[in-house]
Amino acid sequence: MNTDRLPTREGVQSAARSIAAILPPTPLLPVEIAGVSCLVKAESLQPIGAFKIRGGWWRLSNLTEQEKARGVVAVSSGNHAQGVAWAARRLGIEAAIVMPRDAPRVKLEATKALGAELVLYERPGEDRDEVAAREVERRGAVLVHAFGDPWVIEGQGSAGIEIAEQMGRQPSRIVACCGGGGLAAGLALACPDSTIQLVEPQGWDMVGRALAAGEVVRVGEDPPATICDALRPDATKPINLAVLRDRAEPGVTVTDAEVRDAQRFAFARLRLALEPGGAAALAAALAGKVPLDADTVIMLTGGNTDPSDFAGMLAEG
Amino acid sequence: MNTDRLPTREGVQSAARSIAAILPPTPLLPVEIAGVSCLVKAESLQPIGAFKIRGGWWRLSNLTEQEKARGVVAVSSGNHAQGVAWAARRLGIEAAIVMPRDAPRVKLEATKALGAELVLYERPGEDRDEVAAREVERRGAVLVHAFGDPWVIEGQGSAGIEIAEQMGRQPSRIVACCGGGGLAAGLALACPDSTIQLVEPQGWDMVGRALAAGEVVRVGEDPPATICDALRPDATKPINLAVLRDRAEPGVTVTDAEVRDAQRFAFARLRLALEPGGAAALAAALAGKVPLDADTVIMLTGGNTDPSDFAGMLAEG
Repeated sequence: MNTDRLPTREGVQSAARSIAAILPPTPLLPVEIAGVSCLVKAESLQPIGAFKIRGGWWRLSNLTEQEKARGVVAVSSGNHAQGVAWAARRLGIEAAIVMPRDAPRVKLEATKALGAELVLYERPGEDRDEVAAREVERRGAVLVHAFGDPWVIEGQGSAGIEIAEQMGRQPSRIVACCGGGGLAAGLALACPDSTIQLVEPQGWDMVGRALAAGEVVRVGEDPPATICDALRPDATKPINLAVLRDRAEPGVTVTDAEVRDAQRFAFARLRLALEPGGAAALAAALAGKVPLDADTVIMLTGGNTDPSDFAGMLAEG
Repeated sequence: MNTDRLPTREGVQSAARSIAAILPPTPLLPVEIAGVSCLVKAESLQPIGAFKIRGGWWRLSNLTEQEKARGVVAVSSGNHAQGVAWAARRLGIEAAIVMPRDAPRVKLEATKALGAELVLYERPGEDRDEVAAREVERRGAVLVHAFGDPWVIEGQGSAGIEIAEQMGRQPSRIVACCGGGGLAAGLALACPDSTIQLVEPQGWDMVGRALAAGEVVRVGEDPPATICDALRPDATKPINLAVLRDRAEPGVTVTDAEVRDAQRFAFARLRLALEPGGAAALAAALAGKVPLDADTVIMLTGGNTDPSDFAGMLAEG
């Protein structure tokens, strides 16, 4: 399997057909923000609570029979973990997921409940890539990267095909949270006529910085804390940068306080329970940091959050 | 307008066409309960957070021009209030909503935000029907009953037409929470091949008791407390009983503790924020009180809940 190839629009379209056969489309819901009626795409309603089920499914579906027999390894703080575990169970593939010991408990438990084997590491301290490499070596397994993989990017992009089908046209603008840039790259391929607006947590804007620099940039030694545990990769990958270059609008970051406001807004107005990272794009929209019109779609990407964290967030409001 | 007529299946189908033109279908999401894969219909994702938008829209759409000019009055603890207010704003009709002063604050505020005039009464003490009658008299307005009205029943039934379209067939069983019996009656008309399973809060099973007695039964002098504020009518109406007789499976009630468990399940597994009444049908399914199979649909009916109440519920779990 050539993991060096670039993802393609045709690949995204094939992924969308494959995913439509097993998962109902997530709803596109109307929402009013600052007097503008726009749309949210509720990927938090996927069976695993996040869009990562798309990339996991498409990547694992494209393994050779020999690769399937040897199993897969993934590194994830939780949502990609569940996406890979869900697809692996459905396809009868063994999955080992390398997760930080301090990942949200709900994500650790949900990944285990899907039948995956958890391989825990200490964050900070242990190098997760080394841990993963050791597992890949030991098992002869295939590593499924969370975002720097052409199939994973194509799978995530299927959300964009779904949106265009639901609207009957491509949106003017898609506002998407961004960790490593897998979803953003997929959406850019799926909707070539749409502006792709990236939103990253303050201090963790590794894709925005890479786009500005024209090369992959690593997060500094002492990055600020963020409540968006799903959006904390150390750096993007060249494959994501190659797709997003000249396609994405960088430069928008959100604070923890803005993300909390967005979680409360989603609870009160949309009756959706979003995790912090899943509310990042909405946070930028509510904070007036991105232009909005009737054809704008805001991605709500994940909903896996600890009840105690969610209760605390509601109590703050 | 003849409010004494019985609602019809053709009326439900017309309502479904009218509603499909203005509201996207709410999603039918897969969920696993006790090892059985079944479906939930997330009506909590309607713009007002509840299915009541359907009945409100269909009733107000069918007013004569003269009636529209005189305005409407509704009595509601919150969800019907918002359904009527939403439809009234969209159709340019004045709406006065009679609500108990102790209704959830989020529902009072949301109804006001939709442009309706609030007429508050004391619960217990003031008779809400007398308050409403006074407003109807004073304004020359039309009273839009929350469940005992043929158009309202037909409107709520449009959810059943949507379900059948989404599944490509009628479900084997629809598990629906039940206050006065408007939704249940509508679903019974929409899906004649489906078993309609009613679920009511313990002590407030006024439809179940009416079905057993063959006549309308009023709640006793000192009914038990329930957290399901949306499911507390004093009695059903003859029109609901006429439709549901020989069609609905009564006898299932749920406790506050079972409803709380269902709210936590919906949060953790479906990432949906449900109000207590909106989780009653799910509560019965989780408590093993209704049979489930792959063609069973559980109605999630409302999501308007105070953040502090929701936070407290999460903390209890």
